[in-house]
Amino acid sequence: MNLSIAHLGPSGNHSEQAALFYVNWLTKTTREQAILCPYPSIAQSIRAVAEGKVQLAVVPAENSIEGSVTMTMDAMWQLDNLQIRLALVMPIVHVLISCATDLGNIKIVYSHPQALAQCQGWLERFLPNVQLMATNSTTEALERLETDLSAAAISSERAAQLYNLPTLASGINDRPENFTRFWVVSQNKISQNKVSQNKNLEEQSLISQSDASHTSLAFSVAANVPGALAKTLQVFAHLGINLSRIESRPTKRSLGEYLFFIDIEANFKEPLLQSALTELLTYTEVLKIFGSYNVLSTDVI
Amino acid sequence: MNLSIAHLGPSGNHSEQAALFYVNWLTKTTREQAILCPYPSIAQSIRAVAEGKVQLAVVPAENSIEGSVTMTMDAMWQLDNLQIRLALVMPIVHVLISCATDLGNIKIVYSHPQALAQCQGWLERFLPNVQLMATNSTTEALERLETDLSAAAISSERAAQLYNLPTLASGINDRPENFTRFWVVSQNKISQNKVSQNKNLEEQSLISQSDASHTSLAFSVAANVPGALAKTLQVFAHLGINLSRIESRPTKRSLGEYLFFIDIEANFKEPLLQSALTELLTYTEVLKIFGSYNVLSTDVI
Repeated sequence: MNLSIAHLGPSGNHSEQAALFYVNWLTKTTREQAILCPYPSIAQSIRAVAEGKVQLAVVPAENSIEGSVTMTMDAMWQLDNLQIRLALVMPIVHVLISCATDLGNIKIVYSHPQALAQCQGWLERFLPNVQLMATNSTTEALERLETDLSAAAISSERAAQLYNLPTLASGINDRPENFTRFWVVSQNKISQNKVSQNKNLEEQSLISQSDASHTSLAFSVAANVPGALAKTLQVFAHLGINLSRIESRPTKRSLGEYLFFIDIEANFKEPLLQSALTELLTYTEVLKIFGSYNVLSTDVI
Repeated sequence: MNLSIAHLGPSGNHSEQAALFYVNWLTKTTREQAILCPYPSIAQSIRAVAEGKVQLAVVPAENSIEGSVTMTMDAMWQLDNLQIRLALVMPIVHVLISCATDLGNIKIVYSHPQALAQCQGWLERFLPNVQLMATNSTTEALERLETDLSAAAISSERAAQLYNLPTLASGINDRPENFTRFWVVSQNKISQNKVSQNKNLEEQSLISQSDASHTSLAFSVAANVPGALAKTLQVFAHLGINLSRIESRPTKRSLGEYLFFIDIEANFKEPLLQSALTELLTYTEVLKIFGSYNVLSTDVI
């Protein structure tokens, strides 16, 4: 049976590209076949995994310019039984797609607001007088380009190929160091990944791949306990465990109450990390472990 | 001379409401008069202060549901000489505005995507079959309501009054605990608020109000130094200083490199915090202190 993989649609966007990279890698390494299932939102892609409608989802976790993808964080926290299988780091390259024969004929440029923002310098230099128009995705406006020769869209090279449209300029993002990190998410093999005080941490080790380099987790702390955050961070600092990322999200219950998402440069099975997590349990309200996984750069695929 | 206060426009949105609250409070407490200056973006509102075009800006810092306002964080980091004078916590109440005589006649609802998301449950219950249409602000679609009786918009009570339009339902947000924290930002009285290793911290105390309860700062750490984040957090944990918030933002240089924004429940002038900041200097690359300030709940204005 083919693996089914959810991602944010429509075809041609960066989430689909990341999912395709993953499928190619999977086919090469395990000979497994997969089909892609586009969903209208990131939350729905992740929910499809939690509900067993698909086996995997490939979702953006953070971008080097824009930061965390909050929809992904919120869905990972709200849904149970999810684990991260792999992280994919993909370079983001924006191209200008248009049927205009010359840049001088372009009067309007469509794209997602993030893409427009990331190409602002290029646009000011080469298309200073055009109108910029925000769309819901980088591919939404592509259909109208064939009939409107004064229009252009900022999208990906793959989208240009898919829609059979010409690329007028490539690599137009202002910062060449533009990467997005995606997560490949599956159901957790064990029925519950909320770790409670009474649950043996050993059970959690099932979700760790033995050679995996990173571990992700999230936790809430009891509300209005002074020093609660400092205490949890001290656990890691005290044991010399490096956090590669810490991100706070609101609990949505009350202003000033947060969840914390942490990425750790260590395998869940390492004794030091096990010690830290056991200690962490005494300071946290809910602790969710998303497993240990490797990071794959899509440059090498 | 009247104070000039920048805020995100157009009129009727929550930033303008927060700015109005501040003006009322200012008039009551200091008899100072102020005029409001709407700007097309949050970044431009803050830039107007940095460039001396206005004296103050009132900008959203975080919402209890959606989290941090990343544009505000990024602008505060990128621009120099800014300080926070006051924090305002304002309840967000969404209302449904329409010229329709009955909910049953509504076919389309316009609003900002965040407002639509925050009223999703109410919309599913009372308007399950309408089309939801995203706009750039909660006030953008109001002008078309008078001529289109099948349209509605989610906005604020104040917007309904400003545009002289009827409110069909009030308090339609799914979570009543919906608050936004705004910052009142001014120029820093001293010429530079980037603290370097060679600069006396004492100079910084100029930007602290003596009775202020909170201090905000941001810092970057030297890239690729293992444990750099843990060390900086340990400084506060070690001295028992409570951080009420920690937020990471990408440096935009490279994936995995972060800045950290920290809110501390202490006055900058307190000796314990001065000790922490002196120690913090040894671990940070750039440290920016946004001053100490009080938090005002707009409920009591």
